[in-house]
Amino acid sequence: MRPHLSILALLVLFGLSPLQSFGLSSRHPCLTLTAEDAALIRENLGKYPLFDAAYQAAVTRVETALKNPIDVPQPKDAAGYTHERHKRNYLEMHAAGFLYQVTGDARYSAFVKAQLDRYAELYPTLGRHPAANKQAYGRIFWQSLNETVWLVHVAQAYDCVYDTLAPADRGRYEKNIFRPMADFLVNTQIEEFDRIHNHGTWTATAVGMIGYVMGDEKLVRQALRGSKMDGEFGYLRQIDLLFSPDGFYCEGPYYARYALMPFFLFAQVIDNNQPEMKIFEYRGGLLGKALDATLQQSWTGGAFLPINDALKEKTYHTAEMVLGVNLTYARLGHDARLLSIAREQGTVSLGAAGLEVARAIAIATGPLPAYPLHSVELSDGPDGKSGGLALLRFGPNPAKDSLAALKYTAFGMEHGHYDKLQFIYYDNGREIIPDYGAARYLNVDQKFGGRYLPENKTYAKQTVAHNTLVVDETTQYGGSYATAENEHADRHYFDAGDPDFQVASARDTAAYPGVAMQRTTAMVRDARLDYPIVVDVLRAVSGKKHRYDLPFHYEGTFLAINAELARNTTALAPLGKKHGYQHLWLEGSGETSGPVRFTWMNGSRFYTLHAAAGASTRLLFTLAGANDPNFNLRPERALILRRDAAEGGTVFTSVIEPHGDWNGTTEVTYGGTPVIEEVRVLAATDEGTVIRVTGKNKLALTLMFSNRTGDDAQAAHTLVAGEETFTWKGNAAIRR
Amino acid sequence: MRPHLSILALLVLFGLSPLQSFGLSSRHPCLTLTAEDAALIRENLGKYPLFDAAYQAAVTRVETALKNPIDVPQPKDAAGYTHERHKRNYLEMHAAGFLYQVTGDARYSAFVKAQLDRYAELYPTLGRHPAANKQAYGRIFWQSLNETVWLVHVAQAYDCVYDTLAPADRGRYEKNIFRPMADFLVNTQIEEFDRIHNHGTWTATAVGMIGYVMGDEKLVRQALRGSKMDGEFGYLRQIDLLFSPDGFYCEGPYYARYALMPFFLFAQVIDNNQPEMKIFEYRGGLLGKALDATLQQSWTGGAFLPINDALKEKTYHTAEMVLGVNLTYARLGHDARLLSIAREQGTVSLGAAGLEVARAIAIATGPLPAYPLHSVELSDGPDGKSGGLALLRFGPNPAKDSLAALKYTAFGMEHGHYDKLQFIYYDNGREIIPDYGAARYLNVDQKFGGRYLPENKTYAKQTVAHNTLVVDETTQYGGSYATAENEHADRHYFDAGDPDFQVASARDTAAYPGVAMQRTTAMVRDARLDYPIVVDVLRAVSGKKHRYDLPFHYEGTFLAINAELARNTTALAPLGKKHGYQHLWLEGSGETSGPVRFTWMNGSRFYTLHAAAGASTRLLFTLAGANDPNFNLRPERALILRRDAAEGGTVFTSVIEPHGDWNGTTEVTYGGTPVIEEVRVLAATDEGTVIRVTGKNKLALTLMFSNRTGDDAQAAHTLVAGEETFTWKGNAAIRR
Repeated sequence: MRPHLSILALLVLFGLSPLQSFGLSSRHPCLTLTAEDAALIRENLGKYPLFDAAYQAAVTRVETALKNPIDVPQPKDAAGYTHERHKRNYLEMHAAGFLYQVTGDARYSAFVKAQLDRYAELYPTLGRHPAANKQAYGRIFWQSLNETVWLVHVAQAYDCVYDTLAPADRGRYEKNIFRPMADFLVNTQIEEFDRIHNHGTWTATAVGMIGYVMGDEKLVRQALRGSKMDGEFGYLRQIDLLFSPDGFYCEGPYYARYALMPFFLFAQVIDNNQPEMKIFEYRGGLLGKALDATLQQSWTGGAFLPINDALKEKTYHTAEMVLGVNLTYARLGHDARLLSIAREQGTVSLGAAGLEVARAIAIATGPLPAYPLHSVELSDGPDGKSGGLALLRFGPNPAKDSLAALKYTAFGMEHGHYDKLQFIYYDNGREIIPDYGAARYLNVDQKFGGRYLPENKTYAKQTVAHNTLVVDETTQYGGSYATAENEHADRHYFDAGDPDFQVASARDTAAYPGVAMQRTTAMVRDARLDYPIVVDVLRAVSGKKHRYDLPFHYEGTFLAINAELARNTTALAPLGKKHGYQHLWLEGSGETSGPVRFTWMNGSRFYTLHAAAGASTRLLFTLAGANDPNFNLRPERALILRRDAAEGGTVFTSVIEPHGDWNGTTEVTYGGTPVIEEVRVLAATDEGTVIRVTGKNKLALTLMFSNRTGDDAQAAHTLVAGEETFTWKGNAAIRR
Repeated sequence: MRPHLSILALLVLFGLSPLQSFGLSSRHPCLTLTAEDAALIRENLGKYPLFDAAYQAAVTRVETALKNPIDVPQPKDAAGYTHERHKRNYLEMHAAGFLYQVTGDARYSAFVKAQLDRYAELYPTLGRHPAANKQAYGRIFWQSLNETVWLVHVAQAYDCVYDTLAPADRGRYEKNIFRPMADFLVNTQIEEFDRIHNHGTWTATAVGMIGYVMGDEKLVRQALRGSKMDGEFGYLRQIDLLFSPDGFYCEGPYYARYALMPFFLFAQVIDNNQPEMKIFEYRGGLLGKALDATLQQSWTGGAFLPINDALKEKTYHTAEMVLGVNLTYARLGHDARLLSIAREQGTVSLGAAGLEVARAIAIATGPLPAYPLHSVELSDGPDGKSGGLALLRFGPNPAKDSLAALKYTAFGMEHGHYDKLQFIYYDNGREIIPDYGAARYLNVDQKFGGRYLPENKTYAKQTVAHNTLVVDETTQYGGSYATAENEHADRHYFDAGDPDFQVASARDTAAYPGVAMQRTTAMVRDARLDYPIVVDVLRAVSGKKHRYDLPFHYEGTFLAINAELARNTTALAPLGKKHGYQHLWLEGSGETSGPVRFTWMNGSRFYTLHAAAGASTRLLFTLAGANDPNFNLRPERALILRRDAAEGGTVFTSVIEPHGDWNGTTEVTYGGTPVIEEVRVLAATDEGTVIRVTGKNKLALTLMFSNRTGDDAQAAHTLVAGEETFTWKGNAAIRR
């Protein structure tokens, strides 16, 4: 990733407060909670249900802990008892510290002290964690990342009980735990600390927090500006480089969620200690934009689009997103639309911001305004020029209805997937053309200790695991991370102004050297169709012969295809030997030169993929699970369209039509066969692509997409196809 | 099924009103709605939200229909447009007739007349439906069953507008439609009419309804007592023979739901016309017991246990169950606990009973009492002596928490499965050890016209598709329906008095001649375990050598097994050639003589199957989907325990332990490894089986089950095993 500095960042880094003496406060608590916050909370207990519930959960957690013996075990496993126990300990200490501040109850401060006493004994004895692997190791936990999370929580607990401790105790904790741990994180694990990456943000936050508590200005400076304090690394640099100007986080929403936690936590700490830095306004209010961009990348139920390494169970209900929503509301303008997300989250963060949100929800009269999930293009890269992600939505309830995504971002660091021009499609609250996400069962010890599984690399990251073009049965960039990390796809155009005809288009020339790919995705609504359809044109241009595979991974039940299939009913073999193909059982295959019509059902709705006739096309039906000795892959199915194309290239033109309704309760079913009868490519040149979609009820749509370089809403296009001449203005047009 | 007559039935059939002149009323409407009902509804519109919503749905349905042209198409398909259109027509006519009675609006009666005019033209031209197959054919629909449903609705519509029609029109409808249709149903399709089966009930109801409307006493008598009016068939005989004294419907809950519709509809009609028959009190209030038994066989979300041919999407939210709940409430004692089911159903039936329920819910103060779903044994057979179904439940919310079922019913007519001693297990709102249900996609034209798929017979009905013993890789009864239909398994004992130790036991000797099987299932709660466990002992005794396969179909993700598995990672082949084995891909296999510990996860919970050490056991991991050319089977997995046993037989002893919690949102996980460490069979003789379960936290349970014939709560048992002597009283006992 190329370095980049915003003007504001330059001002801050070279002119303003961070370089001057901080005049660190000696008041405690000073991190995420202040004495004023604690007083406010004390006064408002019992008034606002959401806050009271969060408070009560903390009370229950700590009271339960108080009834049981403290256990600070010798670290052993990466996802078993000792791992979970140390996590529980920091959560309990954090809650106890908070409760001490609110209630003044000495049982709570004594609990934190008792734990710290045990850690002060244990920590000096620890070396490298026994379950550490090649990731940066920790001492209490298998990886240093978990250690930073421990410190983020325990620094707050320590801060909360600081004034209750004898100086000798404080000295012992700082000598035995906090200073060596900070030293370990800054110096031993310097590659994690001086790193533009969420690990770097977590580490900076942990180190910065304990620095503020201990009044150690150097640690704070290092947290903000990197180990050398020169601004090349550290928290501020992370804000500059990890997000696009739109707030898109370079790893995608799954890790955005994770990274937002330290970003927001430390912003709050900085704001409480150095309000003159105006950290929430930094880079044009970047943190608020990042929260919005992450919310935009969610669908029904608040689940995030599982691009790159991502676990599908993550939603905006996680604690990180709760904190982000609460702090954005409290410190960035009190946007009432955030309250509807907060209410869906069903909880608030334990602090002044959470109290404010709970209060606002409790006193609201009338329905809360919905959070505006809408069609949007999110740019990628610190300067917004490393491609992006297009989201096309339709429906009265945009979290539930159609969402088509086209991905043309940069690689997204080591959790990236080889998925340039990936297409994902949700409808009716379900995954229809899904992204596999990551092969990982987080915190499940039997599954490789909860780490990423080997199949994550051999399958989930590979191009064929996605819904994008595979050239010559090889993964993009030859599967080379070193190459991929420096490349990105490019936006072509995006226009969602007309909700009935929204278009996104992107290009890539680097994933397969010598093959130029363009993908154009449109969401089209027409009164003669039950639901919006998705038009998808993937054009590959090359001077050489290639084999092109375009997979559509589909969720649901196969119903019918208009081609003779040879089904492998008595023996299955993998489709290939490498690049992910080794994991696909070939369940059946066919061949056609005519149009393809494949219908499946998912939930209460039918779906038909209409692929326009083209060169002779092989149809490969696959099931994931081959070469998977430990049952690590989900048995998911795909239809792969395969063409061996001569010099010149090929165009895959598809329309995905949701249709009808199937109701198992009432047994009333309609529309099981599609309305669309034919999808034809009338022209596909460097000037443009013209597609005609015809069907029942006199459906006749003509779609025109520009293939010219660049985004030009004024360009006039003319294309002759047979006896028809097509003219249109702008990037794309539709005639009905 | 052997004939059976209850004493009450005898009295009714040979002594009382059905044989005397009915004195049929000439008032209309006289079926499910009376003039008094209509007036009551008119007066109460706008008062009770649930009823208003149902009423408004009818208004919307009919007003929409009024805006569109009437279409009475030439019958063509079995699940396509013409099928659905004729269904829509009868629903629209039914609603319009109802609305005419309530509002007096002549547009509604005119709509019914206009439809009847069209059917009066069409019906006389119709022969055998073109999509009819070997099932009893219809004319408007592919099977006569749908035709009876049409008549049930249209008879009501005709009844509602009867008084608005000129005698000539009535004469024409009766001559062209109703008399020939009744004649067709009673005489041409006499095998459906004179049949102890839900088809017979539907047909009797249709014929009886139109008989009442037309004042045709003979049709009513035939409906009540069969075509010969001798009581051998007909509605009353169906009540006698299709249900057990507990209300268990012989086909299981899926078809019970379907059958309850005509049972309740016609009961209401009879009650409105011949209250002296006290039809709701018939056979000890059988209809109310049938409703309760059907509700008992539901789990989370109201879904029915999918035993026999059953589609899993069926819940107690269907219109049939709404009607059953409403009528049971209104005419069988106003049990307030039914109201909580009605509220969950979220709708009421369109009539006086629905109004009553909606009113009761609207005026209720305080929370509605929960419907008591509880552990229960339901007997099968008209005399309750053809085996049964045991349901063991545990949890504060019995619809959501553990439910273990042991099935030892009769076969259940032609929709029965070869699944004697089948075991099914739900937990935490999910299917854990599921029943496959039927292979069918109802109303999906592409899936064999929505009919039962070929794989229903070749897989879903076969023994290996279930969680019960397969002997010598063959299906029970050799797969012979003729044999199976005359056999049933037998209850042994059932005791759910202690919620912490509930036991059911059953035997079968007929499914595999020469092999006596006994299965004992216990639900055991212990404070040292996270959740109740299920203990399952399947004992097979035989004088010959046999191969015994015990499948556990499991839902969820494989985590670990304590045996070396040879995984078929590069080629898959079916496990066998017939009896369902041809549909199972063999994904992996292993062998052990020691205990088996297999862990998987499902949703937020972990599950471990602990199988006690026994003879050398092969472990076969399978995936459904081989020999399935049209992708008709769901890709579901199973672990099959296989033993080749010498003379004498074998015992499979398993404990299913749910444990821990996995939370993807909070990332807090615990208890991923089981608490139980060992399950041992200490003794297994004709006297009894003794099992010891030991584990962490000093868990030590000793379970003693009687293997003696008969249910004897007083019997004293003594068993010596090694140096220990076990004595207990009754069928089963536990020492902790």
